[in-house]
Amino acid sequence: VTTASLRWGIAATGSIAAQFVDALRQTEGAELVAVCSRTPERAESFARTHGIARHHGSYEAMAADPEVDVVYVATPHSRHCEDAILYLEAGKHVLCEKPLATDQREAARMVATARAQDRFLMEAIWSRFLPAYRELGRLLAEGRIGEIRMVEADFGFAAPFDPHHRLFDPAQAGGATLDLGVYPVQLAHLVLGVPDEVRAVGHRGSTGVDEQMAAVLHHAGGAVSVLKAAVRTSMTCTARITGTNGTIELPAFMHCPGWLTVHDASGTERIETPIEGQGLRYQVPEVQQGIAEGRIESAAMSHADSCAIAGTMDAILEQIT
Amino acid sequence: VTTASLRWGIAATGSIAAQFVDALRQTEGAELVAVCSRTPERAESFARTHGIARHHGSYEAMAADPEVDVVYVATPHSRHCEDAILYLEAGKHVLCEKPLATDQREAARMVATARAQDRFLMEAIWSRFLPAYRELGRLLAEGRIGEIRMVEADFGFAAPFDPHHRLFDPAQAGGATLDLGVYPVQLAHLVLGVPDEVRAVGHRGSTGVDEQMAAVLHHAGGAVSVLKAAVRTSMTCTARITGTNGTIELPAFMHCPGWLTVHDASGTERIETPIEGQGLRYQVPEVQQGIAEGRIESAAMSHADSCAIAGTMDAILEQIT
Repeated sequence: VTTASLRWGIAATGSIAAQFVDALRQTEGAELVAVCSRTPERAESFARTHGIARHHGSYEAMAADPEVDVVYVATPHSRHCEDAILYLEAGKHVLCEKPLATDQREAARMVATARAQDRFLMEAIWSRFLPAYRELGRLLAEGRIGEIRMVEADFGFAAPFDPHHRLFDPAQAGGATLDLGVYPVQLAHLVLGVPDEVRAVGHRGSTGVDEQMAAVLHHAGGAVSVLKAAVRTSMTCTARITGTNGTIELPAFMHCPGWLTVHDASGTERIETPIEGQGLRYQVPEVQQGIAEGRIESAAMSHADSCAIAGTMDAILEQIT
Repeated sequence: VTTASLRWGIAATGSIAAQFVDALRQTEGAELVAVCSRTPERAESFARTHGIARHHGSYEAMAADPEVDVVYVATPHSRHCEDAILYLEAGKHVLCEKPLATDQREAARMVATARAQDRFLMEAIWSRFLPAYRELGRLLAEGRIGEIRMVEADFGFAAPFDPHHRLFDPAQAGGATLDLGVYPVQLAHLVLGVPDEVRAVGHRGSTGVDEQMAAVLHHAGGAVSVLKAAVRTSMTCTARITGTNGTIELPAFMHCPGWLTVHDASGTERIETPIEGQGLRYQVPEVQQGIAEGRIESAAMSHADSCAIAGTMDAILEQIT
């Protein structure tokens, strides 16, 4: 595999796939060469719309395409595990949409496959590569707000109820926690590490998916996280990190904020962290660099992190009856 | 007992007792006749400062004072149960500072005593009688924001650590949940009723009291509450009630807000709910009217409600290890 110009394929043709086309086109050294879909017509139409040279009428066909080095898996959550493993076993590297899997067991299988195949695998938590999250990392590293005592974050909106929509469909691993909760959960893990207690309540609607959830996490040293997500309840979609010396606020939307606000003894500072171009692009160099360096994972979004995040979401979902 | 002019005694001489003097002086039909303290000098000094005719050098002495009809118990939490029972058994009515007791068992004993003695007993959750909470009740009753799906509320600040201060002293029932958490907890009970699940995490500091806590509650129909309190972590001290058709926000401080904000399809409305005079006064007519009508409890702050709130706080504290 040459990584001077990495050749990308996109698995699936939904709206996030279309956004990722822009992300790749805005990234130096990324070449978009193929797209695939279960439905050949959709693959062809997507390829035509976006000017992609090759299209495949099945996921397997793209796995067999020797011109593809790395695949962006943008299928429904319920397919992430099998699709990622398909490409890893075909020798491709994989950037897989979040959540990496529907549970920790699947996540562990995916990671084991990446290891066995010596191929790069990363969960597409693009937030962590955005200017706001880079700045957040810098503020935390320098201890700007002291010892962190609490992380609060939520992501929720009142979607129109449609039992056939992915969000409400258990067969497609719908529900608030996996689709939206992953952002608050990953923030808690990023700032406070793996929790030693996860306690949650929530509500499953008529289709069986969790329509809202609220979780409290206990971390080493007594810090706590308070996380919420919903698909039928409007939330502020903000985050707040409180330390012994101050507070950092992430405005809506907390997964891609355009600025941070720091409150401490010296007052309030607003730090601009604008997203330039397609926000999904910021994670692409991380993937390309990892592959170029012969690594199988990103340090900023590691396999252990993805598995731990999946474990926290498992613990939340088990408690929502 | 004549209630044309109800004769009040105040048990304890702390800062809340001094505020309550003003509350009584601002209430028609309330006559402040006595104060007591374990320390005779303190009782005398408080009586002199506030122009109160009689002072007693023990709680028992005021219990024996035939001129006192109703006692405001403003002692540390750890004494509420025994002090309230002392006065109830002496035939006095009691308004007891929040939290009513240190646990549900004590609360139940106090209520049983009020029943046995046929005397009025109310927990001094003054919030519920303020203009903001009356307006909130009106908005909820008219269904302004639809079906309620979530109540979020917190109350916390970073107090200077002092192991001898009441807040940090387990012997005085210190800690975040009982002292501050009672306000978010009572709001959840007010809006969504008694929860059927209470899940919490938190941290006990070096003195053993809970320095911070975060709790999630599940209510009938799948609504949830997210409640937080802290004595060493700064919080927003706000509340937010989200329904299927909108949101009501209580600004800081959520236990005595000067206005409410309603967001719904028609836009944002700010409803002014100013507190006039000493905020503690709003609960006094509730006590006086209850006594005048020969009742033993308030409908707005009932015995069942106080016991249920104590039970929720028990459940929270049991989970903070």
